[in-house]
Amino acid sequence: MSSAATHLHKCSDTPVAPVKTTVHFSITDKVGALDDCLAAIKAMHISLTRIESRPSKTAEWDYDFFVDFNAVDADQVRQVVKSLEPFAKHVHIVGAAGAGELPESTPWFPRKMVDLDTFADKVLEMGEELDSDHPGAKDAAYRARRADITKIAKTYKTGQPIPHIEYSQVEIETWAAVFEKLTGMFPSYACREHQHVFPLLVQNCGYGTHAIPQLEVVSKFLKDCTGFTLRPVMGLLTSRDFLNGLAFRVFHSTQYIRHHSSPLYTPEPDVCHELLGHVPLFANPDFADFSQEIGLASLGASDEDIERLATIYWFTVEFGICRQGDQIRAYGAGLLSSFGELEYCLSDKPEIRAFEPAKVAQQKYPITEYQPVYFVAESFKDAQMRVREFANSCDRPFSVRYNAYTESIEILDSKEKVIRYAQSIKTDMLTLVDALEKLH
Amino acid sequence: MSSAATHLHKCSDTPVAPVKTTVHFSITDKVGALDDCLAAIKAMHISLTRIESRPSKTAEWDYDFFVDFNAVDADQVRQVVKSLEPFAKHVHIVGAAGAGELPESTPWFPRKMVDLDTFADKVLEMGEELDSDHPGAKDAAYRARRADITKIAKTYKTGQPIPHIEYSQVEIETWAAVFEKLTGMFPSYACREHQHVFPLLVQNCGYGTHAIPQLEVVSKFLKDCTGFTLRPVMGLLTSRDFLNGLAFRVFHSTQYIRHHSSPLYTPEPDVCHELLGHVPLFANPDFADFSQEIGLASLGASDEDIERLATIYWFTVEFGICRQGDQIRAYGAGLLSSFGELEYCLSDKPEIRAFEPAKVAQQKYPITEYQPVYFVAESFKDAQMRVREFANSCDRPFSVRYNAYTESIEILDSKEKVIRYAQSIKTDMLTLVDALEKLH
Amino acid sequence: MSSAATHLHKCSDTPVAPVKTTVHFSITDKVGALDDCLAAIKAMHISLTRIESRPSKTAEWDYDFFVDFNAVDADQVRQVVKSLEPFAKHVHIVGAAGAGELPESTPWFPRKMVDLDTFADKVLEMGEELDSDHPGAKDAAYRARRADITKIAKTYKTGQPIPHIEYSQVEIETWAAVFEKLTGMFPSYACREHQHVFPLLVQNCGYGTHAIPQLEVVSKFLKDCTGFTLRPVMGLLTSRDFLNGLAFRVFHSTQYIRHHSSPLYTPEPDVCHELLGHVPLFANPDFADFSQEIGLASLGASDEDIERLATIYWFTVEFGICRQGDQIRAYGAGLLSSFGELEYCLSDKPEIRAFEPAKVAQQKYPITEYQPVYFVAESFKDAQMRVREFANSCDRPFSVRYNAYTESIEILDSKEKVIRYAQSIKTDMLTLVDALEKLH
Amino acid sequence: MSSAATHLHKCSDTPVAPVKTTVHFSITDKVGALDDCLAAIKAMHISLTRIESRPSKTAEWDYDFFVDFNAVDADQVRQVVKSLEPFAKHVHIVGAAGAGELPESTPWFPRKMVDLDTFADKVLEMGEELDSDHPGAKDAAYRARRADITKIAKTYKTGQPIPHIEYSQVEIETWAAVFEKLTGMFPSYACREHQHVFPLLVQNCGYGTHAIPQLEVVSKFLKDCTGFTLRPVMGLLTSRDFLNGLAFRVFHSTQYIRHHSSPLYTPEPDVCHELLGHVPLFANPDFADFSQEIGLASLGASDEDIERLATIYWFTVEFGICRQGDQIRAYGAGLLSSFGELEYCLSDKPEIRAFEPAKVAQQKYPITEYQPVYFVAESFKDAQMRVREFANSCDRPFSVRYNAYTESIEILDSKEKVIRYAQSIKTDMLTLVDALEKLH
Repeated sequence: MSSAATHLHKCSDTPVAPVKTTVHFSITDKVGALDDCLAAIKAMHISLTRIESRPSKTAEWDYDFFVDFNAVDADQVRQVVKSLEPFAKHVHIVGAAGAGELPESTPWFPRKMVDLDTFADKVLEMGEELDSDHPGAKDAAYRARRADITKIAKTYKTGQPIPHIEYSQVEIETWAAVFEKLTGMFPSYACREHQHVFPLLVQNCGYGTHAIPQLEVVSKFLKDCTGFTLRPVMGLLTSRDFLNGLAFRVFHSTQYIRHHSSPLYTPEPDVCHELLGHVPLFANPDFADFSQEIGLASLGASDEDIERLATIYWFTVEFGICRQGDQIRAYGAGLLSSFGELEYCLSDKPEIRAFEPAKVAQQKYPITEYQPVYFVAESFKDAQMRVREFANSCDRPFSVRYNAYTESIEILDSKEKVIRYAQSIKTDMLTLVDALEKLH
Repeated sequence: MSSAATHLHKCSDTPVAPVKTTVHFSITDKVGALDDCLAAIKAMHISLTRIESRPSKTAEWDYDFFVDFNAVDADQVRQVVKSLEPFAKHVHIVGAAGAGELPESTPWFPRKMVDLDTFADKVLEMGEELDSDHPGAKDAAYRARRADITKIAKTYKTGQPIPHIEYSQVEIETWAAVFEKLTGMFPSYACREHQHVFPLLVQNCGYGTHAIPQLEVVSKFLKDCTGFTLRPVMGLLTSRDFLNGLAFRVFHSTQYIRHHSSPLYTPEPDVCHELLGHVPLFANPDFADFSQEIGLASLGASDEDIERLATIYWFTVEFGICRQGDQIRAYGAGLLSSFGELEYCLSDKPEIRAFEPAKVAQQKYPITEYQPVYFVAESFKDAQMRVREFANSCDRPFSVRYNAYTESIEILDSKEKVIRYAQSIKTDMLTLVDALEKLH
Repeated sequence: MSSAATHLHKCSDTPVAPVKTTVHFSITDKVGALDDCLAAIKAMHISLTRIESRPSKTAEWDYDFFVDFNAVDADQVRQVVKSLEPFAKHVHIVGAAGAGELPESTPWFPRKMVDLDTFADKVLEMGEELDSDHPGAKDAAYRARRADITKIAKTYKTGQPIPHIEYSQVEIETWAAVFEKLTGMFPSYACREHQHVFPLLVQNCGYGTHAIPQLEVVSKFLKDCTGFTLRPVMGLLTSRDFLNGLAFRVFHSTQYIRHHSSPLYTPEPDVCHELLGHVPLFANPDFADFSQEIGLASLGASDEDIERLATIYWFTVEFGICRQGDQIRAYGAGLLSSFGELEYCLSDKPEIRAFEPAKVAQQKYPITEYQPVYFVAESFKDAQMRVREFANSCDRPFSVRYNAYTESIEILDSKEKVIRYAQSIKTDMLTLVDALEKLH
Repeated sequence: MSSAATHLHKCSDTPVAPVKTTVHFSITDKVGALDDCLAAIKAMHISLTRIESRPSKTAEWDYDFFVDFNAVDADQVRQVVKSLEPFAKHVHIVGAAGAGELPESTPWFPRKMVDLDTFADKVLEMGEELDSDHPGAKDAAYRARRADITKIAKTYKTGQPIPHIEYSQVEIETWAAVFEKLTGMFPSYACREHQHVFPLLVQNCGYGTHAIPQLEVVSKFLKDCTGFTLRPVMGLLTSRDFLNGLAFRVFHSTQYIRHHSSPLYTPEPDVCHELLGHVPLFANPDFADFSQEIGLASLGASDEDIERLATIYWFTVEFGICRQGDQIRAYGAGLLSSFGELEYCLSDKPEIRAFEPAKVAQQKYPITEYQPVYFVAESFKDAQMRVREFANSCDRPFSVRYNAYTESIEILDSKEKVIRYAQSIKTDMLTLVDALEKLH
């Protein structure tokens, strides 16, 4: 059995032209300014995919513009910047082709939850073409069914309910086989957090052998517990896109199921991997914080840092083990959904090392066999703090925070934004002191 | 012209039996505990409207149960509590009939965004019956149209898009008349924040004389700016319900429009009042914080405190004026949507006093004529801090915070929850320091 | 009896030439820079009272210079600034003569505890000359004794122990008469905080009728409780100097005692007023915070703001009353050391108003008779927050904090200092969370 | 040359009877309670070294008692506890002999700055007897001079100025030889922080070859920079006492100088080691924070943890090296005062490892030869955070903070103290936000 049923593709991201580009700039509030600006943008004859104007978060009375377009080349980006110069200030480009030439360039990253909609058609491997070693590779009906299901992901938009899938009896039986096998192992191998949440999934989300739980029901449950939500995905995203999603507490989840011929094996993530491996952990607040921390570090990170963060993700969210009292237990979804590796990882065969992100990030790993080395987290809170320190050592020149109210990323690169953030911490401190005083 | 086009009904809430009641309790995590508990609840033969089990936020490894039912009387509540005693701990009742008899009782309040769904059928005045002084009272077609639109609100559920209304030409003309009249006055009377946002609504949400903007579009814009969202409402909610909504950054908004016979007058809130008066302010971060502060103070407050907070709401969100440099300007929606009172309030006729919540809360006010007294806020931030101080002086024995990730209210009444909150503030401080260090 | 036994002189400060001036500037760390700079300063031929060089708190590798001199006129200050220009940066003048002409000027204020040493010879009324209405005015022996004692204050330097006074039997009897009379009244009139501390002063500092407690012993006790210390003073300081001392938690205290002929009356502060009125309150942490808040607000404040803060001081630290449950009690030292006004202030004769600093600051008051109006504080914490809000509304363009480690004032006017401050708050949050987690 | 010129003695602390014991308890404020309590304590017939009563920091209206005595045996401690039982609450013992029998026992630690006075007569090696390998061992005049100087330390009390030493011409020449040799090496070997401060010591504290700087002058300079102060010490303290001092930002410093026969060698710390090695670093705010962090962790720590913290101290404050850009530089005083090891430590001979406190704490080290391994800190801030994490992993069941106002340690083991701490952080946040808003 392979440990490949995970969400990260090791290949480095292949850049594809035209490059998705966001131009973000501010204009001064004066009579007619908004209209003038809009007219200028439209006059550029570029193919715009979004124009938004909002109250500025930088200068109290300015306006912010977000303009997305697909840049043909660096020249075009430069032209756009130039034509904005007469009236715009703080022109900020993310994702432009000519990163090397334009010093202010940073790899594109989603700023709002809806920006995740653009990931759908960037899946690395298409739904229909399966690797030759896939147990369903030669089963046309399976391939068609899989394609049917992945179509949902292709058109899914933020805010919509995740469509219900009417799973067939064969699919349910495949699920049931996996469910029975793994739930028998969890008491001895899964971490305390996984075991604690699992019966709640039975009681609230229909976990059991009689049916495959629906992503929509599970997503709502997670939202209630920690604010995590699921998004249907066609297949493997790039590491960058996948990790970026975690910054929004969004987990990209498959909906199709492995081939019935080999229920205990799959070379790619499927709904069994998601529901039995990942979902229980995302209901835990500390694990949710930890996962988002990786996501936040990935926003606008360099390709090298994305590679390092993806490796950390691999050795934690997918293949992580943790100390619990005197014991070691598994919390990685790649382990919790693979009965072979689950047993192996807690045996005396693999090497066990302490979770030190700077070292983890350098660790090579095989994707088609059991891991030779695992890293032990002391706790999810501890692991989160370590990832944060690691992230601070990366060279990204700006800080970000996620604003859960507006479901958007704020770049804390101006005094005004930092002040607003400090004010919100001040208000939190007022509430904390009040709560402490009222605690009996 | 009347100033009655506001959202608060002065009458004190009439209690109606059966009383909506939530029982919240925890159970210890052990084998089979969840099932035993569920069986016991079901054996009670009460009409349950919700059963949810979640990971506990109080003790690390416990489970929390939320059970909603409509209590016939205090005896029934006592019986429920008694039958839970053998296995549950921390049984907490909110909203029970016999508040006086059960010392742990607190008026019911929504804990999760979805709890707002229960407000729909508690509207104080039904959609069809209009007061005799309503300009549309004798127009059967208007009444039918109004009823059609309010049906949407009756069945609306959290998370759904707000249905599109195809407004008639007559309706659009009514809107256009109001729009023209008021937008002509805004430059001289509306506060800076209102004027700053208004052109963005023109550019992004279709504000103008040609059409009535759709709530769904406006709600998404607000979500983007501050996290506020709109919810369709049939008519007047109780003060308690209406203010409780603000704690979730939810504003209950009408969708129907006033009678075409008198476009510059309406005795009740309508879509003109909402879109021209309220919406621009909710796009301002400081005003959003201020409004939510009133909402948070209202959760589980006594009837007397609700009355006082409603009075504060009246003199701010509806009829507030503020200092801006050397000038006084209007920010209350009741003023900004009433061309007569807008002019009057900034004239030398009414009395002007400083915004001191403890005094404002005692102020009597007429609902069918211009206000004789207005209160001047120095800034929304300042007004927020003053409302918070006022709330601290109220007698509610617990503190709350809104968790925007889970869209739920957390009651900070245990050490564990306070610790978790303190941890999140600590993490915010780490981010703040990092951002400060990176600020050039 | 008069209520004049207080520390503030109502007359506005009389400016005296030459004006004490501090020039604060930074230089870049490079070979020989320190020596070049020192040579340039010495070449200016001005009468320097201090030259200090320290590691910069603004730019990581710069040096800070503090140079004090007595400026003859504004021209001289301008010359000094000019001659520093070639190598210094951020030249900052405080206390220059030509405040009106030099826009960067701010009234001089102490930056370090030792700067308080310069207050000694600026006392408004000299020790020897007593007002004609002073009971000891015509008693040459009393005047000589008083002069003997005030000599101590004249030469006292920061860090020294306060010299022991061998009080005469007559002096002790005067003290005993006051002590007996007032301690009989405290149980019915003094606030809870005063009554709580008083027996500790008996037990630890020798309070009683047999001897007059020594300032040194009392000062050490206060240092232990709240960090407040006493400094001997010759007589009345200007309001500015006196309030500035509070920013360092330093209270300027007299050591001499009233005339034995009228033990229950004194027109000026004396050791009875200090020890029985002020000292017990300074042992209370909330009162200490409150007093320092006034002091911090006074640093570099305009003359008008000093006048307003002095009025607030008058109506709190000297003549304040506070609510304690259903009762009103006295906490002002002017009341607690005057048996007549102590009774009067809690009778139904004077007017009682809520403590609102903006209004208090405008209140006129008599200095030779009982106050016609008193202001009631809800608590010292509440009073502190209100003074802070009041201070924020003043026009001082910078924020300050007191660094208790270095016993110095930091002006938070550069990014580097704000970052260092934020880092220390972050560290405190880490400790707070740790403490919360360990709380059983 | 040896690297033994450091402040830590490796031997574990030898317990000596009678054991210094502090009993800390609270009593309820009621009439006569203080007197009753004092009478009861005095009736115990134990040899008290301190009785203090203070306002309680735990319950708002209680009193706290601190009683120090030298316990003969555990029985006596038990008797004392028993006789206090009738009226005292929260009886807390530190330092009792029978630690194993009394579960609430924690090794004694100083709670107030003045408690450091008790260290003087606990020096491990007496002043007069020098090891046979000491270059001055056989020089009777040197031994007498050394004894003269250490007498100062024996009687020194907190708050006093450190007495001036009139150094002889021979002593000054010894100092000058060391000074010349080392200052020639600093530009190439010392860390940036050391080099930055050094010229300030020349300018402000009389550093140079003409005289040995006086501790009192240096101590005042440090107090100004970071709040660190020097205290004269007779010789080597136990690791526990020495580290405990750092919690108060107090550094125990020798005043005598090495033997003139071998100016570049000394087997024990002397004034050259202190002034050239330690002092410049203590003027750096980040290094001061780092050093205090070790000190705070040592308060009440177990003997094993003291050993581990002493090892961390050894490899940082004494023998630490740090990264500065592309280079490695020395910051440990043991290196900066030893010209041989200073050169060696930055050569390619020793092993260099990352500063990870958990590993450092286990590292064995020689005390009479050069270190075979050094640990590289990334920055003092980073090192501080790592030490804090290490401290959190130790098993001390309480948190402490240092209160610089009262120069005392607060044990954060009650809700009231945590609330007071949270309130002070809240106030700091208010100031921080105000400062940020005023930053131009």
